[in-house]
Amino acid sequence: MAALRSYVGGEWRVPSDEGAPLHDAVTGEEVARISSAGIDMAAALDHGRTRGGPALAELTFHQRAALLKALASHLREHREELYALSTRTGATKGDSAFDVDGGIGVLFGYSSKGRRELPNDTVYVDGAVEPLGKGGTFVGQHVCTPLQGVAVQINAFNFPVWGPLEKFAPAFLAGMPTLVKPASQTAYLTHRLVELMIGSGLLPEGALQLVCGSAGDLLDHVTDQDVVSFTGSAATGRRLRAHPAVLAGSVRFNVEADSLNCSILGPDAEPGGAEFELFVKQLVTEMTVKAGQKCTAIRRALVPAHRVDDVVEAAVRRLERVTVGNPALSEVRMGALASLEQREEVRRSLKSLLEAGTLVHGDPDRFDLVDADPDRGAFLPPLLVRCDDPDRPQPHEVEAFGPVSTVLPYTTTEQAIDLARRGQGSLAGSVVTADPAFAREVVLGTASRHGRLLVLNSDNAGESTGHGSPLPALVHGGPGRAGGGEEMGGIRGVLHHMQRTAVQAGPDVLSAITGQWVPGSRRTVTDEHPFRKYLEDLRIGDTVVAGPRTVTLADVEHFAEFTGDTFYAHTDEEAARANPFFDGRVAHGYLVVSFAAGLFVDPDPGPVLANYGLENLRFLTPTYPGDELTVTMTAKQITPRVNAAHGEVRWDVDVTNADGESVAKYDVLTLVAKRTEEG
Amino acid sequence: MAALRSYVGGEWRVPSDEGAPLHDAVTGEEVARISSAGIDMAAALDHGRTRGGPALAELTFHQRAALLKALASHLREHREELYALSTRTGATKGDSAFDVDGGIGVLFGYSSKGRRELPNDTVYVDGAVEPLGKGGTFVGQHVCTPLQGVAVQINAFNFPVWGPLEKFAPAFLAGMPTLVKPASQTAYLTHRLVELMIGSGLLPEGALQLVCGSAGDLLDHVTDQDVVSFTGSAATGRRLRAHPAVLAGSVRFNVEADSLNCSILGPDAEPGGAEFELFVKQLVTEMTVKAGQKCTAIRRALVPAHRVDDVVEAAVRRLERVTVGNPALSEVRMGALASLEQREEVRRSLKSLLEAGTLVHGDPDRFDLVDADPDRGAFLPPLLVRCDDPDRPQPHEVEAFGPVSTVLPYTTTEQAIDLARRGQGSLAGSVVTADPAFAREVVLGTASRHGRLLVLNSDNAGESTGHGSPLPALVHGGPGRAGGGEEMGGIRGVLHHMQRTAVQAGPDVLSAITGQWVPGSRRTVTDEHPFRKYLEDLRIGDTVVAGPRTVTLADVEHFAEFTGDTFYAHTDEEAARANPFFDGRVAHGYLVVSFAAGLFVDPDPGPVLANYGLENLRFLTPTYPGDELTVTMTAKQITPRVNAAHGEVRWDVDVTNADGESVAKYDVLTLVAKRTEEG
Repeated sequence: MAALRSYVGGEWRVPSDEGAPLHDAVTGEEVARISSAGIDMAAALDHGRTRGGPALAELTFHQRAALLKALASHLREHREELYALSTRTGATKGDSAFDVDGGIGVLFGYSSKGRRELPNDTVYVDGAVEPLGKGGTFVGQHVCTPLQGVAVQINAFNFPVWGPLEKFAPAFLAGMPTLVKPASQTAYLTHRLVELMIGSGLLPEGALQLVCGSAGDLLDHVTDQDVVSFTGSAATGRRLRAHPAVLAGSVRFNVEADSLNCSILGPDAEPGGAEFELFVKQLVTEMTVKAGQKCTAIRRALVPAHRVDDVVEAAVRRLERVTVGNPALSEVRMGALASLEQREEVRRSLKSLLEAGTLVHGDPDRFDLVDADPDRGAFLPPLLVRCDDPDRPQPHEVEAFGPVSTVLPYTTTEQAIDLARRGQGSLAGSVVTADPAFAREVVLGTASRHGRLLVLNSDNAGESTGHGSPLPALVHGGPGRAGGGEEMGGIRGVLHHMQRTAVQAGPDVLSAITGQWVPGSRRTVTDEHPFRKYLEDLRIGDTVVAGPRTVTLADVEHFAEFTGDTFYAHTDEEAARANPFFDGRVAHGYLVVSFAAGLFVDPDPGPVLANYGLENLRFLTPTYPGDELTVTMTAKQITPRVNAAHGEVRWDVDVTNADGESVAKYDVLTLVAKRTEEG
Repeated sequence: MAALRSYVGGEWRVPSDEGAPLHDAVTGEEVARISSAGIDMAAALDHGRTRGGPALAELTFHQRAALLKALASHLREHREELYALSTRTGATKGDSAFDVDGGIGVLFGYSSKGRRELPNDTVYVDGAVEPLGKGGTFVGQHVCTPLQGVAVQINAFNFPVWGPLEKFAPAFLAGMPTLVKPASQTAYLTHRLVELMIGSGLLPEGALQLVCGSAGDLLDHVTDQDVVSFTGSAATGRRLRAHPAVLAGSVRFNVEADSLNCSILGPDAEPGGAEFELFVKQLVTEMTVKAGQKCTAIRRALVPAHRVDDVVEAAVRRLERVTVGNPALSEVRMGALASLEQREEVRRSLKSLLEAGTLVHGDPDRFDLVDADPDRGAFLPPLLVRCDDPDRPQPHEVEAFGPVSTVLPYTTTEQAIDLARRGQGSLAGSVVTADPAFAREVVLGTASRHGRLLVLNSDNAGESTGHGSPLPALVHGGPGRAGGGEEMGGIRGVLHHMQRTAVQAGPDVLSAITGQWVPGSRRTVTDEHPFRKYLEDLRIGDTVVAGPRTVTLADVEHFAEFTGDTFYAHTDEEAARANPFFDGRVAHGYLVVSFAAGLFVDPDPGPVLANYGLENLRFLTPTYPGDELTVTMTAKQITPRVNAAHGEVRWDVDVTNADGESVAKYDVLTLVAKRTEEG
């Protein structure tokens, strides 16, 4: 059997020894051999830093986002192949979809977020400009730039496709190269995934490397500019986090550890009712998907004490219908664990749990198996434990990383919260209730020990993605036992791969650094109206100053009548005067911005195609009849769209009165045509 | 001499032994004794968690912000007393102002940020609502809730007032109690600070505790819900970060370590010119303020090779005028180091630096001293090193934590960036240049190894706060050698003390949890217009639906003429049709929002006082002549102001056409009166 190759330094490398065997989780057959012998880890990191990083730095966020989308499409075309290999890890078709389609979904998700929420630039500007002096000559703003190192993934065996992709996507979007180190048991699937990704030809060289086998001395070579993401057991996470090179470099070290996640049934749920059924169904799903080998799976089912019998009975009824066996068969609901060693570990943990409770469904040593060999395949049946004393420590401390859950009783909301918190930090929790007040109390009471909380009821069950599914738009990770990490969460996950730096400067220099016009920085007023410039010709700071126009009492009265906005502050002098903010009748804010548009607009057809929005409008000084308005409009941010004939231009608008006071400030958002079709 | 007391468990406690002596840095006299013997660290943490945390949880962000302001005012009244004690640490009056006033400034800064940028609530909602299903029944949003533990500060000796306050302010605002463990050398000043804070009576019991002396077994008792912030040497930071309890609980561990910060003179600066003088002046300031005992001080001055002679000459000229001695005297420019031990350490480090360079100013063993005893006081003169080979490792690795800097040459911008990065992670850096292109290149090239970068030139020098000053609105911390931490940065620093949790739910439940109306959640339409309700009576979800109103071609033409907004898309049918986004003439966006206001407004005097702004406006579907507009306006967020007769109400506005399509969506911001004066 051939050994898996590693992709490092721009080449596929065969290990220098014969490697250790990897076994099919279902049949026990050897699938491949694995070893990292002969791989120069320091050179691999260096290749990422010196080839991958600079190549990614050449691309804007939007260009990287477009590549992620293309990559996702490429993988989607090859997913049958990934499914087939996935079956050998013990996964059913449904499990494989969770892993493979879930991973591809993260690529699509990040591509979309990147295009919508990041600029078409290489620098991310974080937060507002902070005035640091009264005179306006000294300001601050935060910029995020990619770390100039490698995002090292040390992955778990349970999601050989989703695991690498959910970490790769935000790193790539940030501009950081990735090195994937899969867990050995299922590395043959990750190996094929990386072959497909490299084979796509879409990725710049150095942006993705793969080390199959032991990590060797990899961590000895990480520096402050690298990021290490570890998914696996809490114990290993602790050990790696204390690695001397990690400590010496203050290396960002993100841990996702499996945790003792709970699901709480609300006191409002009655047997036979919608929420009761949802709770039981979700519990059984979480026990059986991936044979319970999910860091987010429900390990503790917290149930009102007087409902424990009902829940156990309903769960057992469903569990009895779960067929276990050869995952290639469509009639099989649950496949194998990833390895025989894994099965042994689950059996050991179950023994600890049974010190505190009793087994109400399943027998780890005797169970029906469809089309599989119980000695060669790593099978277990779903195993439900009932523990009537929720104060026993085992259910809150011992994790059986397989199809195992424990039902525990609670009597008050306070106790439910307390029990949930005894997990000492979880990736995910759920509350199944139709009572928003109960949901609020439990969510806010348990949130500080959870990375994600799902409230499930009949209103959202149709669309709910369920307790165990991390989503790219939401953070994945949890405090304490769950590792204290955070991944994904939309753009947050991108920023985990970037350094935030506070920049202090004068407005002109800050503008030069961020590529965005900053209040106080240079404005360029030219003869040509900036609305006559195509996207490529427009420059940050291009400005039109227009006016003044006097706002008359007749204007205000007419506007009130025409629009129907007869609010007393515009129509009744005496009542307006009684208002704490006005000295008499004032012009409508909407009138002010409408007149401003009348002043700044260039009416003829030209590159500016549409005003698609307006942001951060503040009315700062009332406009009284007789006031003269002047408008100053300045190009603030220019965002060309990849593969479109236009881009977006954000304009800073400042409407001032004759005293030079700002009456209104806001951003106008426009679509502006490119001069050239591609551009 | 009495021993400093600790404030733990609600009481001032005297240590159970006589403690170790603390010495006046100037005279060597004993100032106090220090010991934490007899302090039960576990009980102190528990007191914070069970008394301080719950008491803070009762207060909203705005209430906490108001307390911070009151506390800042209280401390300001007592600052002379703090100055006097500060002198004993070796600080001049200017140094003391930096420490004391800087610390008070952080309290004011956070009070202001809290009121302006946080809701008047106990939960912080982070980011937008994320749609998770096409049907709108399942959505996600992130909430931040305070960690239910203690913010443990382990502080450095150099800023005995600013250090505790810059960490306390964001923790307090977040709702987390603090335990301060000052460095022994200067603990008597922090002790007095905490006495004043506790004595103010402003803080809820348990919100602030003080442990003077050794930390003992304090870290053995931290859990995932605590936060540890350490400021001090990189070596100690590494050691504490690997503490078993810190690893076991994945405890948030924030490190600020002193780093080898650099300042870069631009190639444009010429001797005698403004930027040249600014560079030299700032270098001398950073060497001498706090006798160079600042984590952010300039250790490496990077200078164009052909300017090294000039810079050294100009710096020496200024350094010759620096008087060293008794810091109580106004004619003294630089005081003492914090202790004789500290002086020894600086002398040792200087020896290492001199393996790579030569001393061009100052002699650690022979220097003039004003009104002080060179054997009893911890004095040193400013010491400037010149190193002509910038590739020697010492200047980039050895930090002499005192009045010591090294001048190094560079020849190209690339080399300047490379040398700056050799610090392996710095808290702060500066670039002194009038050339925005050079500033941009250096800032973007070095940002990933810096927490803060200052660009200084003659435009901003008058207002610049300088290389070494962290500010509450900007992040303080840096990667790698600087510890990999991040503090302050405005609200970011508050969030370091909170857990971010992704909440997935139906819109109604999400709204119940966040206290904000969410699209898709329940709207309540009643007979009474919501504009007639006082702040206390208004509820999230209160809605007015108004319309329809038909927009006629005459309306569009009239609006164009009246406002002057004669943009062709509104006035020229043929040209409008040629626009890629329109099928013919369209109504002005400003007309749509003006008509919408005419529909939703309730004209008579009432609780709604003013529309002060508008946010996130998007025009989603063009409005054509003949379209009927309906507006739905819903109370989305209600923010009562502490100590004001009104509050802020954010309304969700959705303007739809006859097909039910959204034409425009935005938030309207109003001021609404309270029924009662206080409220």
